[in-house]
Amino acid sequence: MPGREARFSAVYRVSGDTREARARARDICLEQTVELPSDVVPAGFVRDQVVGRIESLRKQAGGYRAVISYAIGTAAGELTQLLNVLFGNTSIKPGVRLERLHLPPSVLRGFQGPRFGRAGLRRSLGVPRRPLLCAALKPMGLAAEGLADRAYRFALGGIDLVKDDHGLSDQPYARFEERVRLCARAVAKANRRTGFRCAYAPNVTAPHGDLLERARFARRAGAGALLVCPGLTGLDGMRAVADDPSAALPVLSHPAFQGTYVLHPDSGISHYALFGQIARLAGADASIYPNYGGRFSFSREECRRIAEGCRAPMGRLRPILPCPGGGMALSRVPELLRFYGNEVILLVGGGLLTHGPDVVENCRVFRRMVGG
Amino acid sequence: MPGREARFSAVYRVSGDTREARARARDICLEQTVELPSDVVPAGFVRDQVVGRIESLRKQAGGYRAVISYAIGTAAGELTQLLNVLFGNTSIKPGVRLERLHLPPSVLRGFQGPRFGRAGLRRSLGVPRRPLLCAALKPMGLAAEGLADRAYRFALGGIDLVKDDHGLSDQPYARFEERVRLCARAVAKANRRTGFRCAYAPNVTAPHGDLLERARFARRAGAGALLVCPGLTGLDGMRAVADDPSAALPVLSHPAFQGTYVLHPDSGISHYALFGQIARLAGADASIYPNYGGRFSFSREECRRIAEGCRAPMGRLRPILPCPGGGMALSRVPELLRFYGNEVILLVGGGLLTHGPDVVENCRVFRRMVGG
Repeated sequence: MPGREARFSAVYRVSGDTREARARARDICLEQTVELPSDVVPAGFVRDQVVGRIESLRKQAGGYRAVISYAIGTAAGELTQLLNVLFGNTSIKPGVRLERLHLPPSVLRGFQGPRFGRAGLRRSLGVPRRPLLCAALKPMGLAAEGLADRAYRFALGGIDLVKDDHGLSDQPYARFEERVRLCARAVAKANRRTGFRCAYAPNVTAPHGDLLERARFARRAGAGALLVCPGLTGLDGMRAVADDPSAALPVLSHPAFQGTYVLHPDSGISHYALFGQIARLAGADASIYPNYGGRFSFSREECRRIAEGCRAPMGRLRPILPCPGGGMALSRVPELLRFYGNEVILLVGGGLLTHGPDVVENCRVFRRMVGG
Repeated sequence: MPGREARFSAVYRVSGDTREARARARDICLEQTVELPSDVVPAGFVRDQVVGRIESLRKQAGGYRAVISYAIGTAAGELTQLLNVLFGNTSIKPGVRLERLHLPPSVLRGFQGPRFGRAGLRRSLGVPRRPLLCAALKPMGLAAEGLADRAYRFALGGIDLVKDDHGLSDQPYARFEERVRLCARAVAKANRRTGFRCAYAPNVTAPHGDLLERARFARRAGAGALLVCPGLTGLDGMRAVADDPSAALPVLSHPAFQGTYVLHPDSGISHYALFGQIARLAGADASIYPNYGGRFSFSREECRRIAEGCRAPMGRLRPILPCPGGGMALSRVPELLRFYGNEVILLVGGGLLTHGPDVVENCRVFRRMVGG
């Protein structure tokens, strides 16, 4: 076996007093690699290189901060296996939270990451600087024509990204192909009137064998972006969409079925790592999440950390845009602009329907609020 | 739009007093379907049929039990979208736990479920009645020859299922194809000596585009079962493996990267639903999970509920076998037999290496303990 391998590392928050924290950190080293009691780990390469290694352990608010490193070979150059090494069995243990990834260039080289990133997404929408505007097509149960009509009005009002609600898949109420065809056409028609470059982002979350085909169909039908729920497709499913040269559209990641990972601070994965770093590794160009103060429970601090995870240096992986949404009214836009600055996509769903009677006018209000 | 649709339902545990619990239940009805404030939901079909419906809400220990039903069309006949309706955005909310699924025949018809089930798995292994024995090939870092040697000894000692450790993927230490070829051959060689029908179950968890190919390769190479981590491939990835006619081997589901869903009783998904019902929907023939009293934190009651979820009636979906493991010593086997009875796969990992100096003899001890 080879001699000394390069290593990647992760930061975990571990609970307990010094003794417990050290035991938990040691446990992570074994659990995430050889999954054997320490005394039967083969001596030599396996014990010296393959077993995780505690690089540091120090006290922080509410527990300890453990940095643990792994040989890069353990991740096999696969996103699935990288996630497995970082958090596979440890996900089953209370008292440990995956806080942050430190991936060296030798690991990052194996991942394309966001195909567009925030700069590419801005270029494709023709919006170099101001915050981007996103609206959600809904509700489930409308026929394709009804959804296309809403898409037309959002685009006419100056929305940059009209995304499907994440609950629209291939229901009998509005089949995927018909919906995508009609909505893409409706947005194109509005763009001809406005001169804007609004993109329609259909939800291509689908069964394993249909995922790439839906993404490719969407591009052929004129969609300008794609929505994927990696909690449903697997994170690597989103990565496959982002990497597919025949799909090749900006990817918006939606947090459906992922929320449990972040809810409890003593377990799971941090907002920063899951909705920032890992979303980027898995190819997202924008990361949707529920904003503070809406109908979900994320705090201001958690949202700030997501935005940081979207732009923090990750080797050659492009920075992406945070996309806060979830029960936001237009009246909150000024506050959100102060909080996030310009590098953000503001997602307003129901709020664009309830602000005033005319949806097109509501969108224009929204757009004026960001200086567009 | 069609008139009255058949419905499926789910049981949620919701936190809070009566008023809060009712508000949470109402919120689930909207959040999981139309994702709109109640007052802008279109009247008629969408409001009457598509919005989730509270079928009952009653007090139980630690909160309320809400039964909520959904039109079957909302799930679009897809496992990804069914999971999305059951728990997509609600996964992001504390205070709600998905406890149980109630799927009518019209929904279950869309899923093959376990191809083998417990009866088919027993037939393929030639073990009609006694508890089945499973051992784990490890550690990561050994070369393929070393792992094959361990596989041979496990099989020679009378283990029924020799599974890869879930951390073995396609590492440079032991490439997938070479490992699978050598281990399948080693188990076949042992079977010729013993007359038993031990099955080798390689881990086929892989990037999106490689998953089915690894499963098919494994079958061609002589594997007798497959290990999949649905937390990494997506639950529908496991379903795709189970449904694939060219893979067509019993599927063992491994809980890596899924644990967070069950850790906190006030959020996530119950052990019963995730490792029982949902594993079956997603095609598992056996559900691996950490047993109580090992190095993980599941309680006896939680393990009992998983075993129930593996066998509870689910229309035409076959019952499957619970497979408790995780830091178990051979000395615990008698207790586990009393707890689980015969319909179980006992997974012993490190314990087969540490019980005594001779691994083959350790396996024979294990086998005698279950009357084999």
